[in-house]
Amino acid sequence: MEYFKHEQAIVDDKAQIGRGTRIWAFSNIQEGAVVGEDCNLCDGCFIEGGAVVGNNVTVKHHVSIFDGVTIEDDVFIGSNIAFINDRFPRSKAHDIEWDKTLIKQGASIGTNAVVLGGITVGRYAFVGAGSVVTRDVPDYGLVYGNPAQLHGYVTKDGKRTDQPPE
Amino acid sequence: MEYFKHEQAIVDDKAQIGRGTRIWAFSNIQEGAVVGEDCNLCDGCFIEGGAVVGNNVTVKHHVSIFDGVTIEDDVFIGSNIAFINDRFPRSKAHDIEWDKTLIKQGASIGTNAVVLGGITVGRYAFVGAGSVVTRDVPDYGLVYGNPAQLHGYVTKDGKRTDQPPE
Amino acid sequence: MEYFKHEQAIVDDKAQIGRGTRIWAFSNIQEGAVVGEDCNLCDGCFIEGGAVVGNNVTVKHHVSIFDGVTIEDDVFIGSNIAFINDRFPRSKAHDIEWDKTLIKQGASIGTNAVVLGGITVGRYAFVGAGSVVTRDVPDYGLVYGNPAQLHGYVTKDGKRTDQPPE
Repeated sequence: MEYFKHEQAIVDDKAQIGRGTRIWAFSNIQEGAVVGEDCNLCDGCFIEGGAVVGNNVTVKHHVSIFDGVTIEDDVFIGSNIAFINDRFPRSKAHDIEWDKTLIKQGASIGTNAVVLGGITVGRYAFVGAGSVVTRDVPDYGLVYGNPAQLHGYVTKDGKRTDQPPE
Repeated sequence: MEYFKHEQAIVDDKAQIGRGTRIWAFSNIQEGAVVGEDCNLCDGCFIEGGAVVGNNVTVKHHVSIFDGVTIEDDVFIGSNIAFINDRFPRSKAHDIEWDKTLIKQGASIGTNAVVLGGITVGRYAFVGAGSVVTRDVPDYGLVYGNPAQLHGYVTKDGKRTDQPPE
Repeated sequence: MEYFKHEQAIVDDKAQIGRGTRIWAFSNIQEGAVVGEDCNLCDGCFIEGGAVVGNNVTVKHHVSIFDGVTIEDDVFIGSNIAFINDRFPRSKAHDIEWDKTLIKQGASIGTNAVVLGGITVGRYAFVGAGSVVTRDVPDYGLVYGNPAQLHGYVTKDGKRTDQPPE
């Protein structure tokens, strides 16, 4: 096994986990989930079958990534985030097609933020902690608030700018 | 045993669990908790003694339901929700009566939403993800924001309407 | 052992835990973490090495306390809170100094609230559930909203007042 699994984590034999990835306690990676190389999945993460996580991704504590969600390389996901794949969920209503949520390369999603189903967060964008993202976020965009508004841009190394850095 | 318990879930012998309910990993159902039939309790749920959950309820990941909270049939509870039973909590101040929170039949509570203690959420109402609910929600009401405001109504199958559908 | 550890909790041998503290299921206390006496750490808590928790502290469910965070005596931490120690996190960017977050004696932090890195919350202050705290909170201050605003003061026993009670 070329990845690390804490003895109190659950990883299904049919999950695909890349080399060098670390999966910590009380996490659960289901059949059909895809996780890339050199990721760090902290305690209590749940990755559903159909979810795709790229390389070098940091997933903090108690994060749920469901079917229909794609996380590209180098993304940071703060704690207590559950990606949504159904805008109007009802109990036991399963005959639906999941919304597709896409978090592009290098983006950072702050702790306890909400990203609604069907949203695209752009490359190296930054979503402030506790925000509720209801619209797509442009590349390098800095958004925060409820609902989240665009308040400028950030560089790859986290400096604020007025204009997109590219 | 007529319900399913993941081998890494904890269910107290004195919890009452209905037929056909599934309880997933890292969940903990305490003595005196009541959970109905055909529910799905995802990873990391905590149901305290005194909490009551009806039939056909979906409880997503890392949800805490405390004493004083009643969830009726057919409700959807999104991830990372902790129902509150004490409006002004202080550490180690236990000689209080818990607030009563009631989530009525068929309501949906979006991911990471907060419902303050003592609130009633009406039948088939919909609380948007990341909202903070500080007042009662009418039947079929669609509320979102912090604090949550009424923005219209939804039908049982999740379509928006200007007027209550009944 | 003078503290209680649930059989499904993890406590590192090099964590320092005070007498009478209770650590519940699916929690993980790491090497170098310091937790005082008579605390109650509910299910799914994560205390990182370098974090300091005082005496008589209540930590509810699925709370993460990271390096750089200090919680003083008698504090109440609601569920689903992850303290932040890095204002602009990027995946795998570790060569930084953590922000210092300080929660002073007797404060209460409501469920699902966010306290940004580097913030000080004053003695017996109260942060409303679901709030996003972006500025320091004065002693006895009552703050809520996103971003959190000062809306008055609270006494030690949770009564609202217009002026600070001391």
